[in-house]
Amino acid sequence: MQSFELLSQKFALHFDKRHFPEEPSSLYDPNEYFLKLGGKRIRPVLCLMGNELFDEIKKDAWHVGTAIELFHNFTLIHDDIMDKAPLRRGMETVHTKYGESTALLAGDVMLVTAYEELNKISIEYLQSILHLFNKTAKEVCEGQQMDMDFETRELVSLEEYLKMIELKTSVALAASLQTGAILGGAGERNQHLLYGFGKKLGIAFQVQDDYLDAFGDPEKFGKQVGGDILANKKTFLLLHALETAPEVRQKELKLILAGNSSDKIGKVLQIFRDCKADKWALQLKDKYLDEAFSHLEDIAVLSKRKQPLKELAHFLVKREH
Amino acid sequence: MQSFELLSQKFALHFDKRHFPEEPSSLYDPNEYFLKLGGKRIRPVLCLMGNELFDEIKKDAWHVGTAIELFHNFTLIHDDIMDKAPLRRGMETVHTKYGESTALLAGDVMLVTAYEELNKISIEYLQSILHLFNKTAKEVCEGQQMDMDFETRELVSLEEYLKMIELKTSVALAASLQTGAILGGAGERNQHLLYGFGKKLGIAFQVQDDYLDAFGDPEKFGKQVGGDILANKKTFLLLHALETAPEVRQKELKLILAGNSSDKIGKVLQIFRDCKADKWALQLKDKYLDEAFSHLEDIAVLSKRKQPLKELAHFLVKREH
Repeated sequence: MQSFELLSQKFALHFDKRHFPEEPSSLYDPNEYFLKLGGKRIRPVLCLMGNELFDEIKKDAWHVGTAIELFHNFTLIHDDIMDKAPLRRGMETVHTKYGESTALLAGDVMLVTAYEELNKISIEYLQSILHLFNKTAKEVCEGQQMDMDFETRELVSLEEYLKMIELKTSVALAASLQTGAILGGAGERNQHLLYGFGKKLGIAFQVQDDYLDAFGDPEKFGKQVGGDILANKKTFLLLHALETAPEVRQKELKLILAGNSSDKIGKVLQIFRDCKADKWALQLKDKYLDEAFSHLEDIAVLSKRKQPLKELAHFLVKREH
Repeated sequence: MQSFELLSQKFALHFDKRHFPEEPSSLYDPNEYFLKLGGKRIRPVLCLMGNELFDEIKKDAWHVGTAIELFHNFTLIHDDIMDKAPLRRGMETVHTKYGESTALLAGDVMLVTAYEELNKISIEYLQSILHLFNKTAKEVCEGQQMDMDFETRELVSLEEYLKMIELKTSVALAASLQTGAILGGAGERNQHLLYGFGKKLGIAFQVQDDYLDAFGDPEKFGKQVGGDILANKKTFLLLHALETAPEVRQKELKLILAGNSSDKIGKVLQIFRDCKADKWALQLKDKYLDEAFSHLEDIAVLSKRKQPLKELAHFLVKREH
C-alpha cells in the first residue's frame, strides 16, 4: 500500500511528458503550457489509490489517471474563460495568453485527447469506465452551469448549493476512486461504497474551504481571508446565515452585501458568528467526514489496505477539535 | 440499397427526439434548441451508406450516426462563438440567444453526449470506432485552428489551404463513411478506399463552394454571390490568383482587397477571370471528383451497391460541362 504522497510523485513523473503533437503549434502549445503550470494531480492519484485498495496497480490505471487529469485541465481552461479569470496558479490563463477562441478550441482538443487516452485501456474495462467517465463529465458540466446560474440569482437554497457542489466538485473525486476500483476488480457494492466515500469527502472539503475563507488563519490559508465575502460568493456560511438568522439580521446582511463598506468582511463575519454559522459549518464538515469514513469502513477489504485513503482524508479535511 | 434521400428521411425520424435531460434546463434547453434548427444530416447518413455498401445496416450504425451528428453540432456551436456569428440557418446562434458561457458549456456537454452515444455500440467495434472518432475530432479542431490562423496571416499557400480544408471539412465526411464500413464488416483496404472517396469528395465540394461564391448563378446559389470576396476570405480562387497572376495584377488585387471600393466584387472577379482562376477551379474540382470516383471504383463490392454513393457524389458536386 502506497501513500498519497508517494503515488503523487510517481504520477507526476508519469504525466510529465508531451501530450500533444507539435503542429499546429498555435493549437497545441497552449495546452502544453497549461499542463506545465502543474497542479496537485489529486484525481488521477485517487484512481491509483482506488485500484490499490483492491489489488496491485494495473497498467490501465495510469491511462485512466492520465485521462482524468486531462479532463480536469479541460474543465479548468474552459472555466477560466467563463469566469474571465486572468490568472491560474499565479500564471496567465490560456485565454489571457492566447485569446479566447484558441483557449476554447485548446480545451476541446484536450477533452478529445482524454478520450483517446481512455481508449488505450484493455477492452474488458472500456465500456464500464467510459460510461462512468461520461456520466461524471456531464455532471461536472451541470454543476458548472448551476454555479453560473446561482451568480445572478438572489435566492439559492442550501439544498441547491449542496447539489451544485456535489456535481461540480465531489462526483469527479468519487468517480476517480471508482474507476480505480473497477480496474482493481472490486464488486459493485465496494465500488459504490468507495464512490460514496469520495463524494462525502468532497463535500466536507468544500465546507472546510468555505469555512477557511471566512475564519481561516490568514498565515496558513494562503489566500485572502474574506475573499468570498468581497466577491458576494454564495457559500455554505452565507446560505446558512440567510436561512437561519433573525429576519432583521438577514436584511442587514443583504444590505451589507449590496454595499461596499470598508469593513464589509468584518460586518459579515460578525453576523456569521452571531448566528453561529462558524460552529454549524464545522459540525457539517464533521458530519460529511463521518459519513465518508463510514462508507470506507464498510468496504470489504482488510483494514490496513484502507490506511492510505484514511490518511489522505485526514490530510485534506483536518478536524478542528 | 437505399438512396441518400431515403436514408436521410429515416435518419431524420430517428434523430428527432430529445437528446438531453430536462434539468438543468439552463444547460440543456440551448442544445435542444440548436438541434431543432435542423440541418442536412449528411454525416450520419454517410455512416449508414458506408455500412450498406458492404452489408445490411446494423443497429450500431444508428448510434454511431447519432454520435457523429452530435459531434458535428458541437463543432457548430463552438465555431459560431469563435466566428462571432449571430445567425445559423436564419435563427439565433446559441451564444447570441443564451450567452457565450452557456454556449461554451452546452457545446462541451454535447460532445460528451456524443461519446455516451458511441458507448452504446457493441464491444467488438468500440475500440476501432472510438479511435477513428478521436483521430477525426482532433483533426477537425486542428483545421478550425488553422482556419483562424489564416485569417490574420497575409500569405497562405494553396497547399496550406488545402490541408486546412482537408482537416476542417473532408476528414469528417471520410470518417463518417469509414465508421459505416467498419460496422459493415469491410476489410482494411476497402475501408481506406471509402475514406479516400469521402476525403476527395469533400475537397471537390469545397472547391465548388468557393467557385459558386464567386461565379455562381445568384438565383440558384442561395447566398450573396461575392460574399467571400467582401469578407476577404481566403479561397481556392483567391489563393490561385495570388500565386499565378502577373506581379502587377497581384499588387492590384491586394490593393482592391485592402480597400472598400463599391465595385470590389466586380474588380476581383475580373482579375480571377483574367488569370483563368474560374476554369482552373472547375478543373481542380473535376480532378478531385475523378480521384474520388476512382477510389470508389476500386472498392471490392458489386458495382450496383455503389450506385447510391455515386448519385450522392453527383448531387453534391455537379459537373459544369
